[in-house]
Amino acid sequence: MSRDLLGAISVHPGRRLTARLAETLAVVDAASFETQRVPGLTLTLEGVPGDPHAGFTRRAGPREPWHPRGAEIRSGRQLSIVSVEELAEIASAMGHSVVEAGWIGADLVMEGLPSLSFLPAGTRLFFEGGACVVVEAQNAPCRHAGRAIAGHTGRPGDELSFPKIAKRLRGVVASVERVGEVAAGSDVVVRVPEQWIY
Amino acid sequence: MSRDLLGAISVHPGRRLTARLAETLAVVDAASFETQRVPGLTLTLEGVPGDPHAGFTRRAGPREPWHPRGAEIRSGRQLSIVSVEELAEIASAMGHSVVEAGWIGADLVMEGLPSLSFLPAGTRLFFEGGACVVVEAQNAPCRHAGRAIAGHTGRPGDELSFPKIAKRLRGVVASVERVGEVAAGSDVVVRVPEQWIY
Repeated sequence: MSRDLLGAISVHPGRRLTARLAETLAVVDAASFETQRVPGLTLTLEGVPGDPHAGFTRRAGPREPWHPRGAEIRSGRQLSIVSVEELAEIASAMGHSVVEAGWIGADLVMEGLPSLSFLPAGTRLFFEGGACVVVEAQNAPCRHAGRAIAGHTGRPGDELSFPKIAKRLRGVVASVERVGEVAAGSDVVVRVPEQWIY
Repeated sequence: MSRDLLGAISVHPGRRLTARLAETLAVVDAASFETQRVPGLTLTLEGVPGDPHAGFTRRAGPREPWHPRGAEIRSGRQLSIVSVEELAEIASAMGHSVVEAGWIGADLVMEGLPSLSFLPAGTRLFFEGGACVVVEAQNAPCRHAGRAIAGHTGRPGDELSFPKIAKRLRGVVASVERVGEVAAGSDVVVRVPEQWIY
């Protein structure tokens, strides 16, 4: 643990940041996990209605090797949130002019939040109109998303390079804390909780 | 943000700890939030059946000043987890021989985890038999619990002193990630996630 000279765990105070919701995206073709730009989204407490990730629960998969595959578990992955800046960084490192948020199934694209992928669990994003989402965890890039990128760029090697290049740049997964409509182009208040190292 | 010499955010690796589930407690009288020792608990994805904190959602209260009072929100408070060691520390600082977990409505009492209240959000507790809970946040001690303590100790001042003395010692709130039975006296594996300071 990180402790101060008196032996107490050092607590870093919470902070309030502001950012912009650059894009909202939704699954349009149920056969694909890719998303497409829409003017806004309705967020319910189960996520985005109609989205394959909607629900209070989901099935455990390869991301949860500590649970039996297929076991019903609490969902902490209702929403995928990425940033304009990190997507640009991924594209640049992959040698592409662009990697679209929709190719990797993102729901919300933020702009103006440095190192969005490092927003800690418990960070709250407050949208105009009252909707609120809570960050659950950093998202891990997978070959599945890499393959989708390769399908758009026509470069098969992207399937394997994406998981390496996009590590710690692939955004966060989040749950809806309070319902509401969110609109592309609107302002977002971000509350980072106090933090410490255990 | 805490960055290393190259400008990258410093990531502290996750850790695996072991501990013991010392006590399991349940609400017995629906008119009170206090809990009483039971041999074990059934954990469902909504929490402990019959407990006032069970449910995927709950009503926003004074702990969530950023939401309208009474708004339906995602629940991150299904379970209250405290530790033998921190309860002893609270009791000692309050000048009592004991502060019982049940007086403050705890569901699970852990033993052998240093500074349990500082387990970060995303920490998973794995119980024998498969149940798993995820830490959501540090719990904030309130006058409500202080009043309950005062009711047992007969010292009215405990209502006000408890929230001050028990700050950062009052355990954590958690959600059930996977269902199962948990038994008092059994072993628990604790996985602390990797951490960083944003």
